[in-house]
Amino acid sequence: MTELYHWFDLIGVAVFAISGTLVAYEKKMDGFGVVVLATVTAIGGGTVRDVILNVPVFWLHDQSYFAAILAAILLTTRLINKQRTIPHYNLQIADAFGLAFFAVMGTQKALLAGMPDMTAVIMGVITGCFGGLIRDVLAREIPMLLKGELYATTCIAGGIVYTLCINFSLIVEVAMILSMLMTLLLRFAAIKWGIVLHVFKYPD
Amino acid sequence: MTELYHWFDLIGVAVFAISGTLVAYEKKMDGFGVVVLATVTAIGGGTVRDVILNVPVFWLHDQSYFAAILAAILLTTRLINKQRTIPHYNLQIADAFGLAFFAVMGTQKALLAGMPDMTAVIMGVITGCFGGLIRDVLAREIPMLLKGELYATTCIAGGIVYTLCINFSLIVEVAMILSMLMTLLLRFAAIKWGIVLHVFKYPD
Amino acid sequence: MTELYHWFDLIGVAVFAISGTLVAYEKKMDGFGVVVLATVTAIGGGTVRDVILNVPVFWLHDQSYFAAILAAILLTTRLINKQRTIPHYNLQIADAFGLAFFAVMGTQKALLAGMPDMTAVIMGVITGCFGGLIRDVLAREIPMLLKGELYATTCIAGGIVYTLCINFSLIVEVAMILSMLMTLLLRFAAIKWGIVLHVFKYPD
Repeated sequence: MTELYHWFDLIGVAVFAISGTLVAYEKKMDGFGVVVLATVTAIGGGTVRDVILNVPVFWLHDQSYFAAILAAILLTTRLINKQRTIPHYNLQIADAFGLAFFAVMGTQKALLAGMPDMTAVIMGVITGCFGGLIRDVLAREIPMLLKGELYATTCIAGGIVYTLCINFSLIVEVAMILSMLMTLLLRFAAIKWGIVLHVFKYPD
Repeated sequence: MTELYHWFDLIGVAVFAISGTLVAYEKKMDGFGVVVLATVTAIGGGTVRDVILNVPVFWLHDQSYFAAILAAILLTTRLINKQRTIPHYNLQIADAFGLAFFAVMGTQKALLAGMPDMTAVIMGVITGCFGGLIRDVLAREIPMLLKGELYATTCIAGGIVYTLCINFSLIVEVAMILSMLMTLLLRFAAIKWGIVLHVFKYPD
Repeated sequence: MTELYHWFDLIGVAVFAISGTLVAYEKKMDGFGVVVLATVTAIGGGTVRDVILNVPVFWLHDQSYFAAILAAILLTTRLINKQRTIPHYNLQIADAFGLAFFAVMGTQKALLAGMPDMTAVIMGVITGCFGGLIRDVLAREIPMLLKGELYATTCIAGGIVYTLCINFSLIVEVAMILSMLMTLLLRFAAIKWGIVLHVFKYPD
């Protein structure tokens, strides 16, 4: 089971590395810019989470994450250079899977570290969203998660479902599946219908 | 007394959350952007301080901070939507109180962790100013503290007064009041007379 | 020997503080903006490294770093105000020395903390480059290391040479000299011939 978690984790890392590579391409960065942006996007969220939780940062002793990032970069640059652009819609779907897994894993890791529920949900949001946040800051974009359709909110929903399941003594595997489904479905709905959460009434 | 500290702390957090909400409004962010920006502004400085000091991050086990942030957001959005804009001057006064309290609390926490005086003063600056710094980076503004009138300098002054008081064996409460007053008065003066610290002679 | 390391370290810090001061001048920041930008550039990389490695942050108990930063700022502002601009080429040479030393020291510190080779190389990159990265983010520039000629790549090369030397049981001093030379020569070559690492074929 731990083996399986690790594989899902690697897939999540690879998916976020692809999104970092694509942004680096749009910004016409050089080779190292691509590597930095892809790496930061892929492991930034989990790094901030581990530093705040004061647990060992997850990639310090596991180099397979960098192999996953490198593979994602090579694949993406090859596809782009062959003019076969990655369809935006496919990327969003993959990104949603990465988001769902990262949010739930982040929540779980915080609960294991003895954090209260609310802190755990916030750690899920940090794990899922901060990589992309740092990516956008470095690329000088207004962070995607601060504008536009539901993104981080789906992590909150997933984290709440996960902590509720654990509080109702469901087994971890069921809690993970339910909370990932919640995150995924919300995110798919937000992409399909362009759901935005407004709090201000802006004058027209 | 600890009880009292905590209440002041919550007020400081709430004041900074208001400033984050106002910036999010100006940038026309959606609901989650508001929550992220308000939260980061309110707890960003203390989080960076605790991570660098390697002590437990202050909000991990205390959810009252998030209640204060949420209350501040709800209040601010309600006021804005009723077209009753918060007077800029009032906000600056409140912000100055938050700044003074955060700077002194940050210095105190570093001294308690066994840091030398200079490090403690720097921790006061980080606590008081880094939340706003991250807010401005995310909102793609040139950080307020890097431009314009005295801001972080007032934290340095407050921190120096605090460490001096402690070195002269004054009791903690007196040291806190004196150093907060120092920070507040300097900041008020900077707001009223637009005091700027120039080091370069720019050609006209 | 440790004494000597510390002196080199201080020189590296001072050189990066100068680059931060120059950027602050270009952005017409005030006195505190200069201090913040110079300090963040000089100690940002090492701070991020130590936080991720979860070892005590290097400047917490050593105030000589701040003396070096202050001296660098005073020197630079004095030179600028006398209209004697620092020649860009000289700055790049000094910066290259700082980069080489920081990259190798970062790699070494990570190995001492028991990290695997790849993590140690990444820590060298973080130590050498993250200060400048944060500087550029705060000054709202696209980070230099994400664009233009070889910069971080030279840190990677230096770190790989260092870990190889250690793996082949060379003594630490030889490993340091060889890896610093590698970083320096690569960086000099990149400056002289404008070497860029392209991975995308951009349409003309």
